[in-house]
Amino acid sequence: MKRSMYAGRVRAEHVGQEITLKGWVARRRDLGGLIFIDLRDREGIMQLVINPESASASVMETAESLRSEYVLEVTGLVAQREQANDKLPTGQVELHVTAITVLNTAKTTPFEIKDGVEISDDTRLRYRYLDLRRPEMLDNLKLRAKVTHSIRNYLDALEFIDVETPFLSKSTPEGARDYLVPSRVHEGHFYALPQSPQITKQLLMNAGFDRYYQIVKCFRDEDLRGDRQPEFTQVDLETSFLDEQEIQDIVEGLIAKVMKDTKGIEVSLPFPRMKYDDAMNLYGSDKPDTRFEMLLQDVTALVRGLDFKVFAEASVVKAIVVKNAADRYSRKDIDKMTEQAKQYGAKGLAWVKYTEGSLNGPVAKFLTAVSDSLTEALDLAENDLVLFVADTPEVAHATLGALRLRIAKELDLIDTEAFHFLWVVDWPMFEWSEEESRYMSAHHPFTLPQAETSHELEGDLSKVRAIAYDIVLNGYELGGGSLRINQKDLQERMFKALGFSNEEAHEQFGFLLEAMDYGFPPHGGLALGLDRFVMLLAGEENIREVIAFPKNNKASDPMTQAPSPVSAKQLDELSLHVESHEEK
Amino acid sequence: MKRSMYAGRVRAEHVGQEITLKGWVARRRDLGGLIFIDLRDREGIMQLVINPESASASVMETAESLRSEYVLEVTGLVAQREQANDKLPTGQVELHVTAITVLNTAKTTPFEIKDGVEISDDTRLRYRYLDLRRPEMLDNLKLRAKVTHSIRNYLDALEFIDVETPFLSKSTPEGARDYLVPSRVHEGHFYALPQSPQITKQLLMNAGFDRYYQIVKCFRDEDLRGDRQPEFTQVDLETSFLDEQEIQDIVEGLIAKVMKDTKGIEVSLPFPRMKYDDAMNLYGSDKPDTRFEMLLQDVTALVRGLDFKVFAEASVVKAIVVKNAADRYSRKDIDKMTEQAKQYGAKGLAWVKYTEGSLNGPVAKFLTAVSDSLTEALDLAENDLVLFVADTPEVAHATLGALRLRIAKELDLIDTEAFHFLWVVDWPMFEWSEEESRYMSAHHPFTLPQAETSHELEGDLSKVRAIAYDIVLNGYELGGGSLRINQKDLQERMFKALGFSNEEAHEQFGFLLEAMDYGFPPHGGLALGLDRFVMLLAGEENIREVIAFPKNNKASDPMTQAPSPVSAKQLDELSLHVESHEEK
Repeated sequence: MKRSMYAGRVRAEHVGQEITLKGWVARRRDLGGLIFIDLRDREGIMQLVINPESASASVMETAESLRSEYVLEVTGLVAQREQANDKLPTGQVELHVTAITVLNTAKTTPFEIKDGVEISDDTRLRYRYLDLRRPEMLDNLKLRAKVTHSIRNYLDALEFIDVETPFLSKSTPEGARDYLVPSRVHEGHFYALPQSPQITKQLLMNAGFDRYYQIVKCFRDEDLRGDRQPEFTQVDLETSFLDEQEIQDIVEGLIAKVMKDTKGIEVSLPFPRMKYDDAMNLYGSDKPDTRFEMLLQDVTALVRGLDFKVFAEASVVKAIVVKNAADRYSRKDIDKMTEQAKQYGAKGLAWVKYTEGSLNGPVAKFLTAVSDSLTEALDLAENDLVLFVADTPEVAHATLGALRLRIAKELDLIDTEAFHFLWVVDWPMFEWSEEESRYMSAHHPFTLPQAETSHELEGDLSKVRAIAYDIVLNGYELGGGSLRINQKDLQERMFKALGFSNEEAHEQFGFLLEAMDYGFPPHGGLALGLDRFVMLLAGEENIREVIAFPKNNKASDPMTQAPSPVSAKQLDELSLHVESHEEK
Repeated sequence: MKRSMYAGRVRAEHVGQEITLKGWVARRRDLGGLIFIDLRDREGIMQLVINPESASASVMETAESLRSEYVLEVTGLVAQREQANDKLPTGQVELHVTAITVLNTAKTTPFEIKDGVEISDDTRLRYRYLDLRRPEMLDNLKLRAKVTHSIRNYLDALEFIDVETPFLSKSTPEGARDYLVPSRVHEGHFYALPQSPQITKQLLMNAGFDRYYQIVKCFRDEDLRGDRQPEFTQVDLETSFLDEQEIQDIVEGLIAKVMKDTKGIEVSLPFPRMKYDDAMNLYGSDKPDTRFEMLLQDVTALVRGLDFKVFAEASVVKAIVVKNAADRYSRKDIDKMTEQAKQYGAKGLAWVKYTEGSLNGPVAKFLTAVSDSLTEALDLAENDLVLFVADTPEVAHATLGALRLRIAKELDLIDTEAFHFLWVVDWPMFEWSEEESRYMSAHHPFTLPQAETSHELEGDLSKVRAIAYDIVLNGYELGGGSLRINQKDLQERMFKALGFSNEEAHEQFGFLLEAMDYGFPPHGGLALGLDRFVMLLAGEENIREVIAFPKNNKASDPMTQAPSPVSAKQLDELSLHVESHEEK
């Protein structure tokens, strides 16, 4: 029999109809001789009733054999329920079963198939096909499909051309670590899986495509954390002849459409713009969460003259005021925050509480001389807690930025229903890497410098500014974009500034430099992290919740056991030998 | 200045408007003091006129500096052309330029940017960004985007859920050669890039997704030929609870929509069905090109009693009749065909010509006894050429199937505007592999056998039939699908039939077998080769023409030089050592 409809879609209007459903036994209850089955399919749950007074002996026999997760085909008459269940969309009706076929049986599942069950991450991934049966997971994946559908319709309407770019691409030294793919035909040669189709999409602009997009997997072989996976999905777009404002307008329209289509929310446009420097100074982050205040305040000048070395000698002293929460934080609590502060490089965390009209706490005595001006400057009120970090601007920002988020969560200051989008603009071109002892691209080496700062490519690299823009949602970097370099001489200067010799630049990026000889148009674009966007739309805290088959934090799949050893023949064909580090 | 519209879209209705265009100089002509520029963008070409009588000195100076492929921003007044050019959609109008800005210059390109230019494949790929500027290439890629857009809209409307499956997956021994990706975290372990998301999509059915689709890259490390690339794109779909007819209906609807949306062609549904055996017997191919006849005819019984060993002793004697073309094929031509026949394993090619009412040619004398009955059976007429192959059915089919195609091309028998779709159904489950001396899956080991033949899994494997269906277009396999096994015991029997020990089956596919313990629904699906489909829609003969950045036939990219050597550090992090075959 063909299915008449999804079980989750039976409604009062179907009463009296004979229908056939197919799905899984979510629950069976035997009550007063009757057998009740909750039949689950992807659209919901529908109650089946098998009544020995009306059902045939064979239907009763089958019904009595049913266990959870059996797969059924059932036919019956839709009837009004005597007692409606308002929690279920199908709660007005039930199906009086006249025929059942068991399409497949099931063993007892390793965990119950329902929302809100505590299961270890590895068990969930090992039995992902069962985990995905849980309505919240199915809903997350449906949401994801709805988001991409909405994005595609938007970009197709704007005449963006969907172009597939290669996965077997070239390894480049700049950026994160590549996943490599050994070539069988070219011994000792490797493809790299793309970290993003950055250069390729630029070449499509050179080819005159004018507007390109792709929803595409990208790969980075980095150590994993909550919102990182070895493979992730990017909404990648690029345009020619547009300025940054026009590109941002397109992206805002895209996001507004997704918010409307998936959450029914009308976001107000344009999104706020915040300069990178302001984001760092006020939020201690280049991806500020603007759903709450608690801004970083600069008290350096105020405390400069104090006889308190820690403050007087630091390059900056910055503070956050935790309003009306001094009593919520014990000395012990603050000790814990101090530990976190140290992870960000701070030497310590100074604090005072404003209680009964004065500053109190271990450093209060050093601040006596400025206590009034500090109280006024920080607009302190009874029961406020003030946290200070005296350090380099980088450390002060990172530390207070992190504490700000921690405290907001602890004090429940965040409206979790809110979606705060903003642009962070006016980025530095380079970031100093302590690890590599050199300046590296804050975005990538193809970013167009602001014309009035590009002379600093041969001067002070910290002063070069980029025409780059990140889009931030609720404290997450949702995506980033920029205008790109389309002039060969400027691109060569950029590589030089990054420490490439002319030879290295041409060996790695010669094809791009060469392409700039042939009428490369002005262009720019952006890439959005789809996993993160969907995660935030779904109200989840880990991108694994919106990916059908993610890897665990060891980059493994507990279900298939990938990665796995391969045969000697496979390695031999690739001219590869595994050389254990222990052997060396 | 913002662009007003694409250059290719200026029409008579815009006459009198001041507009700004951006694009490339396709051609410059200086005529009678005026400068004419063909400005090209992705939508077409528009004529610019710079007139020294009206243009400023600086505009003239800029105009005089222009060379091919310079990138321009031009502003001017749209005017009616004195002499319309009916070949161009913009041919009614021209732009009287009042301002020009050169946005970028260009060196002389290695080939002219226009359609129909002869360029070597490697040059085209080396400068792909220039090759893609040619309108026919841009059109191919636009067509591709239109096809995927059409497919997505169709499947979204049918509530298929677009789900992304992993690229870093598990290597399995069955099927083609995997591309491997070494793991850094797990020494000596490898991911494999998926040859198709076959098992993953089946697990999505187990998870209750009910209808899944994805347009997804797949990877096979095989030697390349015209319509193969290391990475290719599949329109992948899977459904639960549907039978093969219902799945085929969905696919037919999809194809009908694509044909309508992209070519304006109404295809008639349902598509013809042909049994695998009939395809082989009549067309010598499991992907018959039905745009022309010239069917294979079985004359075994007729020639059985002849005193002509070659015919009398062969297991089959099959023939094709080339109508009214005996005079088109010299003995030398037929010798060439004989060479081709030998490549397919045939010992030779026998032939006769029917001329002046009788059979002529070297083997005619052996056929005297049956010449009348043969003439009648093959319905011969004056000037027909008959080609015979006497061999095993496999060799006879392969040989005559190939010659049939060759001859049809040579004699121009094929209506190249026609699109002949058909289903090939009723497939054998297994194919004998000479290379491996064992039966292998004709499709894959997850295909559901026809119930009435599945007892032969423990008997004669050649008799097991699959519920499988390939869709064929103009002699190309466009896609293939099947119902799948959802019962553990049947899947285990299938692996056993394929020669897997129980241990091997569980080591490689244990997760799938285990999934069958938990209520795996009946399911089935199909995958379409997108590259091939778009190639046929575009009227191209190589899938490279519809892929933005394909590899050459050595699996290299002449532009980026991928694959390329990588650093010792990269190999060391992966615990890999390249071991030259020469060293061993």
